[in-house]
Amino acid sequence: MPTPEELDRIHIVLVRARNPNNIGAAARAMHDFGLRHLRVVNDYPVPFESARTAVDASEVLADAVACANLAEAIADCTLVVGTTAVGERDLQHPLLPLPQAAPRILAELRHSADPTGRVALLFGSEKTGLSNEELSHCNWLLTVPMQQVAGARHLSMNLGQAVAVCLYELVREPPAATLPPSESSPAAEPPAIPVEPILSAQPASAGDLDRLTTLLAETLERSGYTRRHPANSDPMQLRRLVRRMSLDPGDAAVWTGVFRQLLFKLRRFS
Amino acid sequence: MPTPEELDRIHIVLVRARNPNNIGAAARAMHDFGLRHLRVVNDYPVPFESARTAVDASEVLADAVACANLAEAIADCTLVVGTTAVGERDLQHPLLPLPQAAPRILAELRHSADPTGRVALLFGSEKTGLSNEELSHCNWLLTVPMQQVAGARHLSMNLGQAVAVCLYELVREPPAATLPPSESSPAAEPPAIPVEPILSAQPASAGDLDRLTTLLAETLERSGYTRRHPANSDPMQLRRLVRRMSLDPGDAAVWTGVFRQLLFKLRRFS
Repeated sequence: MPTPEELDRIHIVLVRARNPNNIGAAARAMHDFGLRHLRVVNDYPVPFESARTAVDASEVLADAVACANLAEAIADCTLVVGTTAVGERDLQHPLLPLPQAAPRILAELRHSADPTGRVALLFGSEKTGLSNEELSHCNWLLTVPMQQVAGARHLSMNLGQAVAVCLYELVREPPAATLPPSESSPAAEPPAIPVEPILSAQPASAGDLDRLTTLLAETLERSGYTRRHPANSDPMQLRRLVRRMSLDPGDAAVWTGVFRQLLFKLRRFS
Repeated sequence: MPTPEELDRIHIVLVRARNPNNIGAAARAMHDFGLRHLRVVNDYPVPFESARTAVDASEVLADAVACANLAEAIADCTLVVGTTAVGERDLQHPLLPLPQAAPRILAELRHSADPTGRVALLFGSEKTGLSNEELSHCNWLLTVPMQQVAGARHLSMNLGQAVAVCLYELVREPPAATLPPSESSPAAEPPAIPVEPILSAQPASAGDLDRLTTLLAETLERSGYTRRHPANSDPMQLRRLVRRMSLDPGDAAVWTGVFRQLLFKLRRFS
């Protein structure tokens, strides 16, 4: 089970959650599993007041932060993981089932060079989930494995239940030594979970990557690249391209400096 | 993951659930994880009509059975497992954390002498959980491990979330090669958890990276970056910087195109 300090570095980000009951239910699940940091992204005032009626979630809701956009909500996070029900979405990201995703998130928290590095776990709106644009802010995605009854229509989870299941998986490890109902069987050894940190020792923050993406976009525009290769220059494409560089803070700073200089030069001539 | 036939033998029993929304939420979670059989024990008419507004749960609710008492609800089941938040209750039963409880339920389904034997999973009322009298109907109990924030008051989960988390654990396996309580078969190997590389499997060739490095070096030279940041522009520095991008062949081609265009533009002006 993660330490309280580790759980404290996980931020739950609800994007365009419409229903105050769902925000309350997400906060309740966070309370139950020991998380404290909730951020809600909405383009209208977040109905925290209504959500505050949720049982047992008052501390989480009292500290919840409303953000005007997703980039702002994740700017200080070094790992951004999106949740998706997959469905018809055209996924451009690595996708892990939740049982494999949770150990990776914890490994990131534990092996990160920055002991205060933050992880954002994103949940989309009740109706549509995360859009492709929102997914493009993510380093990778996770999905909750479900089992469809034959003939039933496409699956998506209730928002509060999805948050509860994800947080449960994060705190459930390791399979602690079994306390058998009968004494006959020897307790099974908990399986070792070999988990390597996925990303380089310390990843750059989402805010750094966002600034770099903006510089890259303007550089491409001014150089004529955007006109010649519009398909490669779509903002979401560029955001993903930059995330796939797996930059640490040092290299993010170098590339930012490179594109600043290129832009300075291109501006002088165009 | 259990087969649909195995899941079909698990019956969810809600005891004294008061709120139609919670009955609907439980049914929604059942739908999501492929369960079909819901029984609701109440000493007054069960508000199925109100619960039927729950999204995506109509088949489960249409087949739900109202029972006058718990004994009737579980009469045809060969294993009865109660859920509890523990709290101050005086437990007389073996208690397993959910991660250990789920494999035992599945083992019971698989190794039971009766291949149609049914398992009941009991959830108590929102306010009080299962009473001691109700718990006494159970073979054993399970509890969802939670992590309490220091100073917060006693934990109990939202009913719909508790059902979702329990069913998730039932379908999430492997790993789950736990022995059935009654059998002393040889210990199963702890299953290996296959961890796929999350980033692209295929790296760009060294030749591709070398061409990109050469283009980058000339771009930096012509833009004035090399003069301003000589330490960052050393050929070996640049080679390592490009290798650290972890490019696959597609992204290597994109970046090569980007720097070709930048160079084309810079050459026109210098």
